[in-house]
Amino acid sequence: MEFDPWQITDIGDYEALFKFGMEPFEKYKARYSDLRYIRRGIVFGHRGFDKVDAAIQNHKPFVMMTGLMPSGSFHFGHKMVADEIIWFQKKGARTYIAAADIESYLMRGVALKDAKKIAVEEYLTNYIALGLDPKRTTFWYQSDYVAPYYRLADISAKEVTFNELKAIYGDITTSKIISALKQVADILHPQLPEFNGTMPTVVPVGADQDPHIRLTRDVAARLNHTYKMELPAATFHRFMEGLQGGKMSSSDPKSYIALSEDPKAARKKIMAAMTGGRATLEEQKKLGGVPENCAVYKFYFYHFVDDDNELKKMFNECKSGAITCGDCKKRCADMMETFLAEHQKKRAKAKEEAKELAEKFMSKK
Amino acid sequence: MEFDPWQITDIGDYEALFKFGMEPFEKYKARYSDLRYIRRGIVFGHRGFDKVDAAIQNHKPFVMMTGLMPSGSFHFGHKMVADEIIWFQKKGARTYIAAADIESYLMRGVALKDAKKIAVEEYLTNYIALGLDPKRTTFWYQSDYVAPYYRLADISAKEVTFNELKAIYGDITTSKIISALKQVADILHPQLPEFNGTMPTVVPVGADQDPHIRLTRDVAARLNHTYKMELPAATFHRFMEGLQGGKMSSSDPKSYIALSEDPKAARKKIMAAMTGGRATLEEQKKLGGVPENCAVYKFYFYHFVDDDNELKKMFNECKSGAITCGDCKKRCADMMETFLAEHQKKRAKAKEEAKELAEKFMSKK
Repeated sequence: MEFDPWQITDIGDYEALFKFGMEPFEKYKARYSDLRYIRRGIVFGHRGFDKVDAAIQNHKPFVMMTGLMPSGSFHFGHKMVADEIIWFQKKGARTYIAAADIESYLMRGVALKDAKKIAVEEYLTNYIALGLDPKRTTFWYQSDYVAPYYRLADISAKEVTFNELKAIYGDITTSKIISALKQVADILHPQLPEFNGTMPTVVPVGADQDPHIRLTRDVAARLNHTYKMELPAATFHRFMEGLQGGKMSSSDPKSYIALSEDPKAARKKIMAAMTGGRATLEEQKKLGGVPENCAVYKFYFYHFVDDDNELKKMFNECKSGAITCGDCKKRCADMMETFLAEHQKKRAKAKEEAKELAEKFMSKK
Repeated sequence: MEFDPWQITDIGDYEALFKFGMEPFEKYKARYSDLRYIRRGIVFGHRGFDKVDAAIQNHKPFVMMTGLMPSGSFHFGHKMVADEIIWFQKKGARTYIAAADIESYLMRGVALKDAKKIAVEEYLTNYIALGLDPKRTTFWYQSDYVAPYYRLADISAKEVTFNELKAIYGDITTSKIISALKQVADILHPQLPEFNGTMPTVVPVGADQDPHIRLTRDVAARLNHTYKMELPAATFHRFMEGLQGGKMSSSDPKSYIALSEDPKAARKKIMAAMTGGRATLEEQKKLGGVPENCAVYKFYFYHFVDDDNELKKMFNECKSGAITCGDCKKRCADMMETFLAEHQKKRAKAKEEAKELAEKFMSKK
């Protein structure tokens, strides 16, 4: 298989998901190529995107909902999601963002107080610094919101059999059931009469979230005795790999760079990243590097180089052996330092706006 | 065993409950004999009543919480509970009343709208007509309340294992789990910092509710990492039997008389009730009646005859064969007509107050 420097065409393990009704995003790619993640095939699949597409094309209202799990630092994997939601907001989406603090408490033992702090200081602040318009955003904590939301979570219990939950979650716990129903309400409540009413909704998620999306679509269909709801659509992205290859994970600081990280410390992490370099410099010059397997190239590909021609040039420089990994890492580290320095200035400005947004929809009692 | 006309001493099947830690109410009987249901042994058991007793004796604040399941008519079985809660309110209790509309939706398929109507027009209106002070009462629908309540239900999920729920409910469904957690929050939320803080709490219930009480006490104890809570106390009453013997059940109109029933229709039901009469009038005069097994006598015993001497006189009249069942039923039917006519006048007055109370604590959105 030939690697395409502009886009990921190999969806690998993700392909199996198409068997369960997920569809390739291919047909929307040209129309929405202004988003780098779509253009490069990082967003590779969807469910039910047609109604959202129609809403965007016809300038009709639609909802974009996303959830954040407030545990640990906000890193470049999260930045990708942030860029997607900001892009949807700019396409006209009514933007809904949930802080899944009940889920992080039940599933990971994060205290609600800590989760709230992380949600605001890490997630919301970064979202706004990256371009989210807080004035056009509804933000809530699962632990601190309005009655119609909780009512929807509760009545949804009637639409979900125990065996369906088992098929998704394996061993069932009380905590898993509550978390699942909260997610259902997170996604569907913007369509309640108290909010927007029936409306196309899109949830941009990692491919691992498909079972939740399917469950929520099933519940939306079954709730039709009481609420007419559009089945929520989803776009699915692949994950950005970590600095040492493998997963980029909040629980392993060596795998990620946080957007609030000290730029000098971030530079060091880039300089120590796993590259697609050869065993010796001589070999590298002769055979060229392997950008496909390079964590540094991933930063260009996902984040730092939006221009396809420029990216292709960098890809070829590596492939041809014209650049050493050392020089390439320095270049990436420079980009990283510049980005973080600028972003952190924006963060300082965004902080107050994030705090305000976090309090705006909180319950009064 | 000799039957005591003033009180029930045979707790029969209920006795098994004492093995699971329920305690006899005997030791508090003399102190609280002003409540007919206590004096007559209808309230026969408790868990953890000592702290509530101390609060009453020392004029300290305590909470009385009760839940109503809004499905069907409010009958004389419900009146007994109403009399208990009004009595606790008069003893100084901060009164909390839940309309379990989520539970009645999930477990019995009652639409929330219908449940709300029943909760106000049947339950609340009757409570107030019977003497509840709405100004000193917090009333809520499970489907329409404040965030701290829902938060408590959700975080309680972490304190309940799946096997515990199975032991209580047998076959588990998603709906049962949600209903159970709502009940936990119903009982415990008055002790949240947003409400009263730590405070003795009593829940007057039928003996069949003991498993819920135990579960809620366990959760209260386990939540101590986050909230200091008194384990909720409970008093347990036996059920009033139905007009035809057996259970008084909302789903069988021949078994009960509703407090909003037409007095003439109620009279007919009394005249058709199962009595403890003998096969022939001659036998009755010779052997006397059996008030122990008489549905009509139960109305005197539970509701209409508060004076113990008068009740004893009526008991003996029956036992000695001095009164026929026909005459006795007429007397009871007269009492019923008088009671209902007066009560329904009070209902008309209570209606507006009930409506106001029902809206007072509802969420604004």
